[in-house]
Amino acid sequence: MNKNQLDEYFTHSQDHFIDQWKEFLRFESISTDPEYNSRCVACAEWLVTKLKAIGFNSELLQTPTKPVVYAEYKGKPGAPVVLYYGHYDVQPVDPLELWETKPFEPTEKNGRIYARGAQDNKGQNSYAFAAFETLIKNNALNCTLRLFIEGEEESGSEGLSAAMQNWPDKLKGDLLMVCDTGVVPSGAPTITMGLRGIIHFTVKLKGSEYDLHSGVHGGAVPNPATEMARLMASLHAADGSIAVDGYYSAVRKPSAQDLKLAEEGVPSDEIYKAFVGVSPVGGEVKYSVAERVGFRPTVEVNGIHSGYGGAGHKTIIPAFAEAKVSSRIVPDQDPEEMMQLLVKHLEKHAPRGLTLEISDRAIGGPAITVSAHSQAIQKAHTVLSQLSEQKTVYRWEGASIPIVSGLCHLSGAEPVLVGFGMEEDRIHAPNESFSLEQFKRGFMYVGLFLSTIA
Amino acid sequence: MNKNQLDEYFTHSQDHFIDQWKEFLRFESISTDPEYNSRCVACAEWLVTKLKAIGFNSELLQTPTKPVVYAEYKGKPGAPVVLYYGHYDVQPVDPLELWETKPFEPTEKNGRIYARGAQDNKGQNSYAFAAFETLIKNNALNCTLRLFIEGEEESGSEGLSAAMQNWPDKLKGDLLMVCDTGVVPSGAPTITMGLRGIIHFTVKLKGSEYDLHSGVHGGAVPNPATEMARLMASLHAADGSIAVDGYYSAVRKPSAQDLKLAEEGVPSDEIYKAFVGVSPVGGEVKYSVAERVGFRPTVEVNGIHSGYGGAGHKTIIPAFAEAKVSSRIVPDQDPEEMMQLLVKHLEKHAPRGLTLEISDRAIGGPAITVSAHSQAIQKAHTVLSQLSEQKTVYRWEGASIPIVSGLCHLSGAEPVLVGFGMEEDRIHAPNESFSLEQFKRGFMYVGLFLSTIA
Repeated sequence: MNKNQLDEYFTHSQDHFIDQWKEFLRFESISTDPEYNSRCVACAEWLVTKLKAIGFNSELLQTPTKPVVYAEYKGKPGAPVVLYYGHYDVQPVDPLELWETKPFEPTEKNGRIYARGAQDNKGQNSYAFAAFETLIKNNALNCTLRLFIEGEEESGSEGLSAAMQNWPDKLKGDLLMVCDTGVVPSGAPTITMGLRGIIHFTVKLKGSEYDLHSGVHGGAVPNPATEMARLMASLHAADGSIAVDGYYSAVRKPSAQDLKLAEEGVPSDEIYKAFVGVSPVGGEVKYSVAERVGFRPTVEVNGIHSGYGGAGHKTIIPAFAEAKVSSRIVPDQDPEEMMQLLVKHLEKHAPRGLTLEISDRAIGGPAITVSAHSQAIQKAHTVLSQLSEQKTVYRWEGASIPIVSGLCHLSGAEPVLVGFGMEEDRIHAPNESFSLEQFKRGFMYVGLFLSTIA
Repeated sequence: MNKNQLDEYFTHSQDHFIDQWKEFLRFESISTDPEYNSRCVACAEWLVTKLKAIGFNSELLQTPTKPVVYAEYKGKPGAPVVLYYGHYDVQPVDPLELWETKPFEPTEKNGRIYARGAQDNKGQNSYAFAAFETLIKNNALNCTLRLFIEGEEESGSEGLSAAMQNWPDKLKGDLLMVCDTGVVPSGAPTITMGLRGIIHFTVKLKGSEYDLHSGVHGGAVPNPATEMARLMASLHAADGSIAVDGYYSAVRKPSAQDLKLAEEGVPSDEIYKAFVGVSPVGGEVKYSVAERVGFRPTVEVNGIHSGYGGAGHKTIIPAFAEAKVSSRIVPDQDPEEMMQLLVKHLEKHAPRGLTLEISDRAIGGPAITVSAHSQAIQKAHTVLSQLSEQKTVYRWEGASIPIVSGLCHLSGAEPVLVGFGMEEDRIHAPNESFSLEQFKRGFMYVGLFLSTIA
C-alpha cells in the first residue's frame, strides 16, 4: 500500500483502531507487583484472541514467570522475516491521587487518550497492530512477521530472557522492529541508535523494630533516615560523577560522528526546560547532555522512604529506611559486574549499628547500539522521510529496552528502533497519554515500512 | 495521706481511675495535623468537665491556636503554690498498619493499656489526676494547685507560648510539677535534670511537575531524591558531628559532677541494645552516650520521602523529595539562631536546577537544666526514696518539653520533672502502651509529694 492508501484506510477504520487500543488499556497489567499477576495473564490471553482475529496464528509461550504472546503471519516463501517486539505490561500507577482520570479507564480528551500504558507500550503496539491488520486485510504485508509481546519489560524481562533460547525456529529474522521509543522535542521523525542497559535493586537500612523517640535516643543511636541519605549520597562525587570504584572502567568515548549525530537530536537547554519543566543541569555536567544521556552511565535513586511524611512533624528516629536504586549502563559495561560493584560499594559504606539489606536485584540487560550504515536503519530513514517534511534525526536515547540486545543476538536480526512517543505523554508518570496524531504517524510508518519492504 | 493510705485508696478506686484514663485516650487529639482540630477541642472540653467533677475550678483558656485547659484548687492561705503542666495532645499514629490494636480504642492486655497517648502524656496525666482526686476527696491536698494542660506539646506549643504572658496571676508558683518523662532502663526512680530544646521544619526539593523517565532524562536532569539525600547528608560530618557552621559555638561542656550523675543513669551498650533494639553507636561517638544525649545538640531526619516505594521497581526521576528535620538543642543555644544557621546551610547546599522550599518552621523552645541542690528536687528525691527500694537516679534526658523553660521563667517556679515512662512504652511509635504498675507508681509519687508538701 502506498501513503495515500494507508491514509484513506486509517480514516475509514480509525474508530475501530481506537476501540481496540482502549480495550487493551483496560487491563491492569502492572508487572512489577505480584498482586497484578492474573491481570497480566488476562491481558496476554486477550492479545492472543485479538491477533488471531486480525489474521495471525497466535499462542501464549510459557516462561518461568509471565507468558509471552507469540503471533506469526507467514509471508511468501523467500520474503524477508521481520520480528516485532513489544510489551503488554505497564508501570505502576502510584501516586494514584495525582491522576485526573482513572488510569485503567481510558479517557479521550483533546485528541489524546489518557491511561496507564496509553503510549508505553500499549499505544505504540496498538498502531502497529492496526497497521498489521490493514496490510493483512489488503493482502499487502510483504514479509513473514513474527510478534513477541512480553509481559515484563517494566520489571526486568525475566521470563523472556530465560525462555527465549528455547525458541530458535521462531526467533530468527532479518530485522527486529521495535516501536517503544520516542521522537525528539521538535517532533521530527527519530531513529533510536542506542539504548542504555539497566540494573536495579532495593536497599534497606534497619535500626530498632519500632520508631524511636528522637529526643530520648537522638545522638545515641544511628538514624536510618539520615544514614540512608548518607549512603545514597556516597554514590556520587561532588561533580556529579558516579563514585563507585571501577564503574567507568569499561565506558568508551563515543565516536565524533556518533556524538555529532546525537547532539543534533538534543534540544537547547531552554527548549529542554520548556518541555520537561527542569533544566538539564544534573549529572556529569562536564559532558554535553547528548553524551550524558546517550553514552554515560547513571545511578539514580528512584525512590527513598523513611519515617514521617504527613502534615506537621513527628519527632522520631525511623525504624528503617528504604531506597529503590537503578543504574543505566552503556555498551561494554557488563550488567552483572556493575551490580557487583554497586553492592560492594554499599556494603563498604554501610553505617555502623544498622542492618543493610540489598534485595530485588534485577539485571535488566546490557546496552545496545546500532550502526547508521545498517540496511535496516537506511530503510527506516527512507520511509520516515516520505512521511514527514521534517528531517529525520538520530537519537542515542538514554532509556532501556533490556531484552532488545538479547533478542538481536539470538535471532541475528538488525534492530530498528523507531517510535512516536513525546515528552508530553508522561510515560511512567501519572496522567500518561498519547495523541491520536502520533498514533496515526506510527500507523503510517509501520504500514509503509512493511508494505514496501524488499 | 501516707504511703499506706494512698495504696489502699488506689486499690479501692483503681477501676474508676482506669476508666477515666481510657475515656481520655479515646479522643483523637493529634495536634500536628489540622484535620484533627475539632477532636483536640473536644478533648480539652472533656477535661474541663472532668476536672470540675474532681473538685477544681476549671475553664478553657483561649490562645491563638488550641485552647489550654486551666484548673485551680485553692489551698489554705499561705500554702505552697504548685503549678502542674501536662498536655492533652498526642503524636500522629502512622504507620497505622503496624498497630496491633486500634490507636484510639484503648485495649488492656497483660497489665498494660495500649493506645496512642497511653503514656505520653495522657497516661501520666491520668495518674496525676487520680492522685489529685484522691487528695481532694480526703482533704489532704496541702497546697494551692494550678493545672495547665495544653494541646500542642507534640507540635511546638505555639498557643501556650503566645498566650501565657496574659495570665500573670495564674502563672505564679513555687514549683512546676511535670510528669512527662521516664525512668532509666533499670526502672529506678528518675529525676530529670535537663531537657533539650527543639526546632523543626520541612524541606522540599522540586524538579519537574511530574515524575520523569529515568532513562530518557537520567544524567541530564538533577534527581530530587538523590539531591535530597545529598542535602541531608551534608548536615553531618563523617565523625557524626553536625556540619552546620557555628552550630556548636554556644555548646558548653557539662560540669564533671553533672556528667558523673548523668553517666550513672545511662545503661551499658548491651543493656541499651536489649531495650531499644539498636546499639548506641550513632552521632558524635567521641562523646559518651550520656553526654551525647544530655548535653550535645542533634540534627535528625525524622522522615524522608520521594518517588516510588511499592513492590518491585519504578524507573523514574521523582518530581520532588521532602524531608522532615528536627534539631534538639542544648542550654545556651538560641533556637531562633539555630534555625537560621540550619536554613542558611540548606540554602548554601541547595542543588542546582531544583527549587528548595523550607516550610513549617517551628521553634519548640530552648533547653532547660535544673540544679541537684534545688529544694524542689530534694523533696522529689525524698518522696521517691520512700516509695522504692532502688536508688533514685538523675537523668539528663535528651527529649524536649519545649514550653517548660518558658513556664518556669514566667512563673518563677522551680521545675520538678519526674515521670514513670519506660522504653517499652514505645511513645511516638505504633503500639504505644503504659503499664498499670508504672501508673500506680506515678499515682503514689504525686499523692505523697502533694500531701506532704510543706
